[in-house]
Amino acid sequence: MVSTLTNIRYYTGFTGSNALFLVSAKGSTLFTDPRYAIQASNEANCHVEIVTGPLLRALTARLKKLKARKIGIEDTKVSYALCQGLAELGELVNLGNAVESPRWVKKPEEIETIRKSVRLNSSALERAMKRFKVGMRESELAAEIDFQMRKLGAEGAAFETIVASGAHSALPHAKPRPVKIETGGYLLVDMGACFQGYMSDMTRTFGVGDMPRKAIRIYKAVLEAQKAAIDAVRPGKRAEQIHSAAVQVLKGHALDQYFIHSTGHGLGLEIHEAPRLGKGDKTALQAGMAITIEPGAYLEGFGGVRIEDTVLITETGVEVLTQTPKGWTIVC
Amino acid sequence: MVSTLTNIRYYTGFTGSNALFLVSAKGSTLFTDPRYAIQASNEANCHVEIVTGPLLRALTARLKKLKARKIGIEDTKVSYALCQGLAELGELVNLGNAVESPRWVKKPEEIETIRKSVRLNSSALERAMKRFKVGMRESELAAEIDFQMRKLGAEGAAFETIVASGAHSALPHAKPRPVKIETGGYLLVDMGACFQGYMSDMTRTFGVGDMPRKAIRIYKAVLEAQKAAIDAVRPGKRAEQIHSAAVQVLKGHALDQYFIHSTGHGLGLEIHEAPRLGKGDKTALQAGMAITIEPGAYLEGFGGVRIEDTVLITETGVEVLTQTPKGWTIVC
Repeated sequence: MVSTLTNIRYYTGFTGSNALFLVSAKGSTLFTDPRYAIQASNEANCHVEIVTGPLLRALTARLKKLKARKIGIEDTKVSYALCQGLAELGELVNLGNAVESPRWVKKPEEIETIRKSVRLNSSALERAMKRFKVGMRESELAAEIDFQMRKLGAEGAAFETIVASGAHSALPHAKPRPVKIETGGYLLVDMGACFQGYMSDMTRTFGVGDMPRKAIRIYKAVLEAQKAAIDAVRPGKRAEQIHSAAVQVLKGHALDQYFIHSTGHGLGLEIHEAPRLGKGDKTALQAGMAITIEPGAYLEGFGGVRIEDTVLITETGVEVLTQTPKGWTIVC
Repeated sequence: MVSTLTNIRYYTGFTGSNALFLVSAKGSTLFTDPRYAIQASNEANCHVEIVTGPLLRALTARLKKLKARKIGIEDTKVSYALCQGLAELGELVNLGNAVESPRWVKKPEEIETIRKSVRLNSSALERAMKRFKVGMRESELAAEIDFQMRKLGAEGAAFETIVASGAHSALPHAKPRPVKIETGGYLLVDMGACFQGYMSDMTRTFGVGDMPRKAIRIYKAVLEAQKAAIDAVRPGKRAEQIHSAAVQVLKGHALDQYFIHSTGHGLGLEIHEAPRLGKGDKTALQAGMAITIEPGAYLEGFGGVRIEDTVLITETGVEVLTQTPKGWTIVC
């Protein structure tokens, strides 16, 4: 039983918001509700059953009819309550990553779409920054970025766009505030597009007007770490080794204690997919994986820098998909 | 153990994207990761523990230290895998709706925020429709709507804004297409704002240019059903009775078979909360609940109409929060 909508989309093509997908030796069925009758018949590559009432009731009826003895579940995604119901019908088998792992290595057509999503994301930043002025509010710039993404054909932002200025850039997951962007501080923008279902992810950190030397020094150290991490990427390397490469460089600049998250993550139909380029993730990188490389340094009270590209692991190493320049840049 | 982010926000004030919240006789602790150290200390109203590595490991350690014998879980939300781990520590107790149900009846300050969210949503539609012209693409109008929401101070759209024109409006959950909006068909817009964490929800269906009589007849029937449903709302009524009120009116117009979803749902920190105004939901309505009233009729190949307001259940009946006019309206 596949119950995660992203996995259902991956296997059946159906993009609606309410579905269960059952694969058995006797065939595959997508269960959805009447709101999606037309859409499911257009999108799904399998038998569709339109259900009035809870989908689980229809699925349970089917499992009984099939006399299912073992029911495979996405144990890390499906709710405990749902499983308690199913456990009465048969033995539950944890599928672990078996359903999701085929998504980690992207097919050529998926790579093409990610490439377009990355390009669109870069264009949106370029267009939005043309409208940037000192005194603009963080929330206004974020709105402008999202609007440009949409005008360029994105379904929307892959996640809540981060625009963080001054000392607030020291919060890695800052929310845009109705606060004016002033000179003398960083301007950190973390943004991703969702294009035909596929995500992109990029962070750029700018200087606004005159900046203290310290700010430039930190920026250059993070950039060096980011490039070292990219250089470390190739098939067969363990995910955590890429993280180590970034940490090593920051250590050399005595900044490693300010790098408080992992170096990156896979992306595709979801903005966060495996692998996680962080301590403890021993996944072997494979050609065809799309991942982010995004080290940072966050100094409370001063500000933070993050530089992030979306990259593709190739047979021979790595291709940086993000084309937006990343040298130290002063805006305004 | 509270593991749903929205519930964690409700109880602790913390708005980050990675957290677990443990309440025991010995006190409450919010577990989050170093990215959120600054934010959590600003936002959370309880003890915060910053965890490097998986949050569950830290929570498990705490449960062992507390010698927990019974562990209450949000069984419909928490994953099966997580519960399998916890079950080794103590007896799992399904909390059912106990964690979430306090959210159904809104506090005065929550109602104020929902009111603002609804007002903002209406202003965004008004501003976007001023820019509407025949030949504009559905995706352009959707982008314009979302941009206006953001300019008015929303964090973003409460859900993917629906703009569906012509026969495509017969898909209740249509996605905006890069397709031009032409005269002679419906234009259905379903939109909600997220403002200071609280959602609003509204649907309006317009005519574009000259419309066939049938289109107007269907619109008026749905409007009559929507008003009848609103009139039926008062404390003590069962959720499904409101749905029946809408169905009865549509039956009188021989349109009930084209009404393929429920009449509405609660909203607040989430766009879909209990109750569900549909068949089988016997929840008694209470003053302080914010709900949507949104009957529709969807004729495949012709088009669909939905009219939706956000309303507040009061001590004496109902207050319609949505102020956008809903009489039959031709645009362009």
